[in-house]
Amino acid sequence: MKVKSSTPTMKDVAREAGVALGTVSKVFNDLPVGESYRLRVEQAAQKLGYQVNSYARGLRSSKTGTVSLILPNVTDPFFSFMAENVCLALSRRNYRMLLTVTGSNPSFEQQCIRMVEQNKVDGIIGLTYNPLLQVNDNTPFVSIDRNFSAAVPCVSSDNYAGGQVAAEKLIELGCRRLLFFRIGSDVAGEADKRGVGFQAACDLRGVEHRSVVLNDRDGYGPFREYLQEHMPGGTPDFDGIFCNTDRLATAMIDILRQLGQRVPEDVQVIGFDGIRHFGSGSLYCSTIAQPVPQLAEACVDTLLREDRSNLPSLICLPVSYIPGGTTRD
Amino acid sequence: MKVKSSTPTMKDVAREAGVALGTVSKVFNDLPVGESYRLRVEQAAQKLGYQVNSYARGLRSSKTGTVSLILPNVTDPFFSFMAENVCLALSRRNYRMLLTVTGSNPSFEQQCIRMVEQNKVDGIIGLTYNPLLQVNDNTPFVSIDRNFSAAVPCVSSDNYAGGQVAAEKLIELGCRRLLFFRIGSDVAGEADKRGVGFQAACDLRGVEHRSVVLNDRDGYGPFREYLQEHMPGGTPDFDGIFCNTDRLATAMIDILRQLGQRVPEDVQVIGFDGIRHFGSGSLYCSTIAQPVPQLAEACVDTLLREDRSNLPSLICLPVSYIPGGTTRD
Repeated sequence: MKVKSSTPTMKDVAREAGVALGTVSKVFNDLPVGESYRLRVEQAAQKLGYQVNSYARGLRSSKTGTVSLILPNVTDPFFSFMAENVCLALSRRNYRMLLTVTGSNPSFEQQCIRMVEQNKVDGIIGLTYNPLLQVNDNTPFVSIDRNFSAAVPCVSSDNYAGGQVAAEKLIELGCRRLLFFRIGSDVAGEADKRGVGFQAACDLRGVEHRSVVLNDRDGYGPFREYLQEHMPGGTPDFDGIFCNTDRLATAMIDILRQLGQRVPEDVQVIGFDGIRHFGSGSLYCSTIAQPVPQLAEACVDTLLREDRSNLPSLICLPVSYIPGGTTRD
Repeated sequence: MKVKSSTPTMKDVAREAGVALGTVSKVFNDLPVGESYRLRVEQAAQKLGYQVNSYARGLRSSKTGTVSLILPNVTDPFFSFMAENVCLALSRRNYRMLLTVTGSNPSFEQQCIRMVEQNKVDGIIGLTYNPLLQVNDNTPFVSIDRNFSAAVPCVSSDNYAGGQVAAEKLIELGCRRLLFFRIGSDVAGEADKRGVGFQAACDLRGVEHRSVVLNDRDGYGPFREYLQEHMPGGTPDFDGIFCNTDRLATAMIDILRQLGQRVPEDVQVIGFDGIRHFGSGSLYCSTIAQPVPQLAEACVDTLLREDRSNLPSLICLPVSYIPGGTTRD
């Protein structure tokens, strides 16, 4: 199965294009050259399957054709879907993706950034809740879901609108006593707006709502206690729950069923993310789906933009509600 | 949040170690130097957080500190768990991981290999069912789950033993009429041994067994038809099913329940992989779990081994049975 592939050289490209070797070199090093020459060289290179040695090119032009993606993990389905789509968006532009999984370890994250800076990748796309993370001004950096500063573009779903849609949908489906459950990092992020939008929509419609907000380290126990305490005589004093992730929603649905409640007959539940079993199967729950392929495109597009003088500080992409069996629609 | 980090240079390392700049250079370029000098330089570099510029090093020593992982996708939970663990195993060795998601597109896979070869990564770890894939002899390559040739080490779970364990467990739990369901690629792979081991164990115990083997493009429809046809009067003529993946097992459990069968009361089901909801939550089903962290370690260890003169052609790691609610244990 293994064969030695014969690799085309720059000389082969020059011969195919009918130009001098120096012209080929200029094209591959982004030096000025007539447009018709550039075209002929690029066509010849494509025909022969010639690939520029990007390490050599990296030293000469300080472009590496490589982008680093930093994620806490890739086993959470939202993160793995994001990793896949960033990888595909980069591939379409002939860029390669260095993946770093940090396990949310702050010093390891900082070390990754430093390694990445010194290895001269062309940029970093990072989803990190490390409050102390320092990013060198010279490193193009796009943040997912978290605002570092106006100088670092943040790409995110329209979390506020997603919270509003969740509230409106639950109210439309008959809920009048709503809960918002949130679990996650203490570090401020765009995802916080899910709850803000939800509460604003409830207030606007005059519908009762309460919030339970926990940190990851608290686990699900306090949610279970809250639900139990609010079922006097087995009847819940709430009829709809919006959770800030599908994962939390799934855990809450399990707890509700263990406590004898039917979902969606007694209590309706909406999550956030739109993740699917096995990546492409059924939804876990009714959900506000994030547009992950579009988020990945926006990250890559913003990161690789040539003119970096006027970058947006926040790019929000529209979310959509999808029923998934845990609401009465 | 952004500050300019001051980056230590080779000069700083030389000063800290109390050696000449040339000595530092020798250490970083793997040239001969007294062991005590090497130690002092390495300690100084570590203390200062100095990182070797791996692109420059790549040109000089043809070592890049980078390994490429090629996977069909990273949204399938088994693949994402593998990606995460390969990434962590490489990080522990100060290697970085280029991730390529091929979507099982054969020409794209070949293009990836070529790109990888020409960019001089130190090696490739690949899970691919592309029957025509050509790997250059000069590229260290470790294959997951598929045998290319004796020259390409293949790392895999002990699939044969896994199939045996599944059969023995179902028999131990009272099953006497067993089914084996398989879906996947037509290309021969190590995973085929799951069914072989299952059938061998059934034969040894004198237990009835039948197989249904489909290709991915067939979808689940024929399995549903088979199950329906083998429930005369609503009573199944089978009482245990072993599926070649957890994903297939989950789909079959859904179909069985739609057809009015209780799992595990009427029919017991065991899958293969050991994947979990959200990466770390509950199992999808009773399963033969693959040791993914150990598989990742074995891939990286085999790929980066200095002495490549005597590599194994197949490395199998032990699997384990875990009950997950779809068997009567």
